Amino acid sequence: MKTTILIHCPDQTGIISAVTGFVHDNGGNIIYLDQHVDPQANVFFMRLESNFDVDGFKASVFEEEFEEKLARRYTMQWSMHREGKLPKMALFVSKYNHCLYDLLSRYSSGELQVEIPFVISNHDDLRPIAEQFDIPYYHISVTKGTKSEAEDQQLRLLKSHEVDFIVLARYMQIVSAKIIDQYPNKIINIHHSFLPAFAGARPYHAAFKRGVKIIGATSHYVTEDLDEGPIIAQDVTPVTHAHRIADLVTKGRDLEKIVLARAVQLHVQRKTMVYDNKTIVFY
Amino acid sequence: MKTTILIHCPDQTGIISAVTGFVHDNGGNIIYLDQHVDPQANVFFMRLESNFDVDGFKASVFEEEFEEKLARRYTMQWSMHREGKLPKMALFVSKYNHCLYDLLSRYSSGELQVEIPFVISNHDDLRPIAEQFDIPYYHISVTKGTKSEAEDQQLRLLKSHEVDFIVLARYMQIVSAKIIDQYPNKIINIHHSFLPAFAGARPYHAAFKRGVKIIGATSHYVTEDLDEGPIIAQDVTPVTHAHRIADLVTKGRDLEKIVLARAVQLHVQRKTMVYDNKTIVFY
Amino acid sequence: MKTTILIHCPDQTGIISAVTGFVHDNGGNIIYLDQHVDPQANVFFMRLESNFDVDGFKASVFEEEFEEKLARRYTMQWSMHREGKLPKMALFVSKYNHCLYDLLSRYSSGELQVEIPFVISNHDDLRPIAEQFDIPYYHISVTKGTKSEAEDQQLRLLKSHEVDFIVLARYMQIVSAKIIDQYPNKIINIHHSFLPAFAGARPYHAAFKRGVKIIGATSHYVTEDLDEGPIIAQDVTPVTHAHRIADLVTKGRDLEKIVLARAVQLHVQRKTMVYDNKTIVFY
Amino acid sequence: MKTTILIHCPDQTGIISAVTGFVHDNGGNIIYLDQHVDPQANVFFMRLESNFDVDGFKASVFEEEFEEKLARRYTMQWSMHREGKLPKMALFVSKYNHCLYDLLSRYSSGELQVEIPFVISNHDDLRPIAEQFDIPYYHISVTKGTKSEAEDQQLRLLKSHEVDFIVLARYMQIVSAKIIDQYPNKIINIHHSFLPAFAGARPYHAAFKRGVKIIGATSHYVTEDLDEGPIIAQDVTPVTHAHRIADLVTKGRDLEKIVLARAVQLHVQRKTMVYDNKTIVFY
Repeated sequence: MKTTILIHCPDQTGIISAVTGFVHDNGGNIIYLDQHVDPQANVFFMRLESNFDVDGFKASVFEEEFEEKLARRYTMQWSMHREGKLPKMALFVSKYNHCLYDLLSRYSSGELQVEIPFVISNHDDLRPIAEQFDIPYYHISVTKGTKSEAEDQQLRLLKSHEVDFIVLARYMQIVSAKIIDQYPNKIINIHHSFLPAFAGARPYHAAFKRGVKIIGATSHYVTEDLDEGPIIAQDVTPVTHAHRIADLVTKGRDLEKIVLARAVQLHVQRKTMVYDNKTIVFY
Repeated sequence: MKTTILIHCPDQTGIISAVTGFVHDNGGNIIYLDQHVDPQANVFFMRLESNFDVDGFKASVFEEEFEEKLARRYTMQWSMHREGKLPKMALFVSKYNHCLYDLLSRYSSGELQVEIPFVISNHDDLRPIAEQFDIPYYHISVTKGTKSEAEDQQLRLLKSHEVDFIVLARYMQIVSAKIIDQYPNKIINIHHSFLPAFAGARPYHAAFKRGVKIIGATSHYVTEDLDEGPIIAQDVTPVTHAHRIADLVTKGRDLEKIVLARAVQLHVQRKTMVYDNKTIVFY
Repeated sequence: MKTTILIHCPDQTGIISAVTGFVHDNGGNIIYLDQHVDPQANVFFMRLESNFDVDGFKASVFEEEFEEKLARRYTMQWSMHREGKLPKMALFVSKYNHCLYDLLSRYSSGELQVEIPFVISNHDDLRPIAEQFDIPYYHISVTKGTKSEAEDQQLRLLKSHEVDFIVLARYMQIVSAKIIDQYPNKIINIHHSFLPAFAGARPYHAAFKRGVKIIGATSHYVTEDLDEGPIIAQDVTPVTHAHRIADLVTKGRDLEKIVLARAVQLHVQRKTMVYDNKTIVFY
Repeated sequence: MKTTILIHCPDQTGIISAVTGFVHDNGGNIIYLDQHVDPQANVFFMRLESNFDVDGFKASVFEEEFEEKLARRYTMQWSMHREGKLPKMALFVSKYNHCLYDLLSRYSSGELQVEIPFVISNHDDLRPIAEQFDIPYYHISVTKGTKSEAEDQQLRLLKSHEVDFIVLARYMQIVSAKIIDQYPNKIINIHHSFLPAFAGARPYHAAFKRGVKIIGATSHYVTEDLDEGPIIAQDVTPVTHAHRIADLVTKGRDLEKIVLARAVQLHVQRKTMVYDNKTIVFY
């Protein structure tokens, strides 16, 4: 059985030795170990892929002993994930279809190992795409007056389908604390600029006006501070004075879909850890 | 004789035909033509490299007739530059040496076709490098109280050496309007971030704190609005959570020197035109 | 009426002036002019976007006079394209679906302004995707013995639908001269390496074995020399020792689809000209 | 005392646990651990930065016990490096000066933590640059007839100065086995193409002829197979049809110096390990 263990705790001597020894003593073979220390915050991070191909290995017993013998001693926050169970990913969209097409294509071809219980949108426009890929589509319109109610409806769907994480694939609504609090570091957004440049609305217009020579896209976990959440992935592409706003939008679409897919993939493979509003990304 | 003509004027039909016809009728052969229209501002831009290898060609007569027959008719702002005369470039530095080393190496090897009459610095630290390359070095210290006087001294040097343009090669002082007004779109700065992200001081610290996955450098013409001038060149490089601030600084140095050199080269080759706080860069 | 004129001819003085004058005299307004001279081959290239918004403008008359008055004089190869008529693009695929999904998504969303009369494949696997997007799908299997016959069948389809150009979207068969000769510089392929590195089969395996730190993808026009045709677009992405072949394949997929789409878009917008086995790409 | 331990050995379960436990038991604190498994060759690689800030710690005793208790058991190839002693780097150049300038600037400013006992060249042209930086310069001319003798002279210099590694900073001579055998994986070359594309002479000419849209540079360890050694670092930059060979050379210079410096820095920081003609690069 392949497992991924994620740990963070105050940095102390001997942690790596203690953890790897424990895994070894329980019959595990370490396939990959990634570790990072934030020297300013004095925090230690580790990601450990191991194989437990032993008769009689019981994950629940392992977890219990890990908690008792290691986690308490080192004041660890930790989690263990077994390969095999597909995480459930909800998609939120509005009217732009390029990220939706891209994620559904990756899902459909098996590149993205998730279940997609449904797509939610504040518009009905993209329903045919969801139907093309046989994914249920819920149109929940959002207006000033109905926002709270709409989010309740969204939450009911999320809960009833036991959704693990949410992807905002160019969803043009601000998600409120009501939902964010239920899914901390589990909502992934794509912003169509090289954050922190051009946060907020209409970044391509702002980039054009400023005359930048490079544009970008940023995928990040959603927090209550708009466009300020922990960055997971970014990418850029050069532009020139000859590119009009429409050209920036077109070029940006390719960035957006690639960067969002990369962030989603990293999240699914449990290669991300969030600390102090930053994302540690183990490649 | 090789010449470069730069033009901008309100966009009208027939300009390209009129200009290329005029050059042709005067015995010029067009080597390269670059043109751009800003459709929002309705402004036309052109860069024209031509060869006038004809007996009896007189640049002054050509310029006079161009002014009379074309420039007035189309309300052009224009300039003509003959190959051969090296522009005079003043270097302003403080304590960082990587951009200075890089520019002087390019100058010394003939890659950068300029004269460098002197280096000015508010510190004495980099004098040995200037001397290594046989460039006069003026230490003009700048404090709150002496700033105005220091700039007078700088201006006298600039004027007496007939400097054409100024490069701030990590010069850690704000240049005031007193100098900027004398060298509009002729002062090139390197900012150690991907502007407009992390404008102001200590951008690497800010980038580290924000947890970006890409850092950059930006070269721009200096205007009175700090870090807001027309961008000439930008470049970026990926970083990870494992990079500390010192690592960002080291990686950034390479970006800074390459981006600054690129901007300087574009300026020297008269491939830049500034309009509406943006830089048209003809490659 | 917006038109795009593409010209190449031996380089001579006065061409730009003659062409722009002719367009102007016929009531055309030049929107964009791109020009290039190959100094070694002494060949001149031009791309000219113009608007002819005049009463009584007749493209056929214009073309006739252009031929008589300019093309003969300068020995031009030239063509004029009117905006509005969508080019017909045939898609050839095998079993990989990422490029197919990507191109069909762009087509479906209107980003790619083409008609797609059909998809041809030597396998039946991707039929559901074509059907998802309502595109006819022809399964024409290709074996050593049936190749010639299969190509006849392909040609009949291409001809009967008046296909303008062909995109090999990871089509895993070599296209023979029988088809190439009918579509010179009109068949676009995507090769999954940074050509000329790793030409031929299994480039990701070769890249892994060589231990390169960057992988790439290359889109090119198909000629009879396999993987040797004129390059239209290339892009790359960094890799490390930690990436296995399967990781290169996954990362490569994103490169392939983006690079192929970029090349197709350039071709559709008539921004490419081929000369001496190289592609001039006017951005 | 800060140390870096590099290990490779056949992959077996329990290595990480054994090594980290041993370091821990000897009073070491692990600062950074990087590990990699080549699953095809079944080889395990590890890089371990540790601090031994304990009274009475003796490196020689530690090394002896490490050898006895770990290295033999796991059939390790390993080495331990203590911070503080600067490695000695010899520079070989010919007539191109950009890499020389760049490396000497980094050395002079303290960015590159090495000693440079001398520069060797087969020409006398770059002597003034070495002298500018106060580095001894040896002109050893190389002709067909004198090559063997010249290499003897080079070897004497290398040996008498106890040189640790050699950097070929655009040295335009083939280094023979006589020298390579003495410095296995200790000679770093910069090739001015994106290897394996355009191996051999005049890569910019070849790139121009092929019409590639991206050019690159590659730094690698020198082996007897020319341009086939383990790649340490690569980088690329876009080019267009408008770039002539001279433009490629100019753009390439920037790539070459940056990529070479990056490779040298990685080597100096002992972040590289060579296996099976590939370089593992721990960032």
